[in-house]
Amino acid sequence: MMSSVEILKVEGGESWFTEEEEGLVSKSWNLMKKDAGEWGLKFFLKIFEIAPSAQKMFSFLRESNVALEQNAKLKAHAKSVFVMTCEAAVELRRSGEVVIRESSLKKLGGVHLKYGVVDEHFEVTKYALLETIKEAVGEMWTPEMKRAWSVAYHHLVAAIKTHMK
Amino acid sequence: MMSSVEILKVEGGESWFTEEEEGLVSKSWNLMKKDAGEWGLKFFLKIFEIAPSAQKMFSFLRESNVALEQNAKLKAHAKSVFVMTCEAAVELRRSGEVVIRESSLKKLGGVHLKYGVVDEHFEVTKYALLETIKEAVGEMWTPEMKRAWSVAYHHLVAAIKTHMK
Repeated sequence: MMSSVEILKVEGGESWFTEEEEGLVSKSWNLMKKDAGEWGLKFFLKIFEIAPSAQKMFSFLRESNVALEQNAKLKAHAKSVFVMTCEAAVELRRSGEVVIRESSLKKLGGVHLKYGVVDEHFEVTKYALLETIKEAVGEMWTPEMKRAWSVAYHHLVAAIKTHMK
Repeated sequence: MMSSVEILKVEGGESWFTEEEEGLVSKSWNLMKKDAGEWGLKFFLKIFEIAPSAQKMFSFLRESNVALEQNAKLKAHAKSVFVMTCEAAVELRRSGEVVIRESSLKKLGGVHLKYGVVDEHFEVTKYALLETIKEAVGEMWTPEMKRAWSVAYHHLVAAIKTHMK
């Protein structure tokens, strides 16, 4: 894991994730986490609204005829990814690196590589994440909060990408 | 051009684009066309917001350091694509086929093939188009109007794809 941390720190220098950014990310996560399942599902439904063909990447969607909103496996997966993303973002500054709970960056990198995830997928996912958080936090949303989540997401993706080789 | 028309008609049968759908598309286009330049630019900015890497496909963006909003070539291109898309949608029923002004489906197919456009790009573009029209028409927006534009867009893309081989 050292290599990705190293790369992230060099890339961002001293200000790779500021205290203000951490505050904005924490504040919004505190508001969303009690309904993480709901927002996680909305996050994935947004991804599939923008890019329906991304559904093909998930075996539990390929093998199912249930509507997306009713798919228990999608719900579980979406919640877990959303919680993992948000918690890693919140922990970014305190830990000084990307920390993933119940998984590892190496495993995540391998999975994303295996399923053919490319830059464009990370981009659409970023857009869907920001749209979801914007809807979730309502009037709390500001350009600064958008930027804070963008920076956090950038670091998470960079960490995954270092393990996609 | 006959082959694509044929395919579209077989695909959609009698109801490939209904009178109601035509009405909704025309009504919204009438509202937008006087500001087609503005909405066309918003359409492309939305595409690049969702998928920044798509900028690499446009030579006049690769070679420029000007902000997207200020790029005269992007503005001209965006307006022309937006007008072409909307006019083709409006004409779909009356002409019984996809009619493109000042260009040809064959040329459009060739260009999209040359620059490596894949399904995912058409998907993101569809989302960006619908979001742009939604913003442009305001309270006129309904699920039926969204569906009408989705059907029209589907036929335009199908026609382009038949020339992408």
